[in-house]
Amino acid sequence: MADAPVREFDAVVFVMLRRAILDPQGRAVQATLARLGHGNVGDLRVGKRIELRLRGERAEVEAQLERIATSVLSNPVMEDVRTELTEVTPAPT
Amino acid sequence: MADAPVREFDAVVFVMLRRAILDPQGRAVQATLARLGHGNVGDLRVGKRIELRLRGERAEVEAQLERIATSVLSNPVMEDVRTELTEVTPAPT
Repeated sequence: MADAPVREFDAVVFVMLRRAILDPQGRAVQATLARLGHGNVGDLRVGKRIELRLRGERAEVEAQLERIATSVLSNPVMEDVRTELTEVTPAPT
Repeated sequence: MADAPVREFDAVVFVMLRRAILDPQGRAVQATLARLGHGNVGDLRVGKRIELRLRGERAEVEAQLERIATSVLSNPVMEDVRTELTEVTPAPT
């Protein structure tokens, strides 16, 4: 019997400062835009978009991604984190 | 005749280093994950997710968002940029 193919997943992790926390970088960018004539821009916040690829079985990879997102890629005290996972393994022929 | 209500839009701008350009921050995070036992993680890249709100008419706001995204929020020589725009004006009653 052939080995099962290794499955691969593309993941994206979004990390944003919590709404209640001041975002100085966002404030600075918004002030720059206002000086450039974009006074109709508000609520600007800067966060992270992290792409990664994971190999393994779906259930394990899903659990691993949640652990990584909340314990390494973000600070749950200060930040909200959201993940997306999409399988990219080519269909068997 | 009543004034037309001001329309509001939520925008998101994603900025990632181009694929051909080395991402040292992504490399560092990936190396950290590998040391923590996540050796099945690859191709990790760190970019930005920028949220903002814009007021105005849709066509003007769309064009303005593209200008801001490509000329202020990213460096087109080094980075790829993608935008999303969603109207948030409450429906008139």
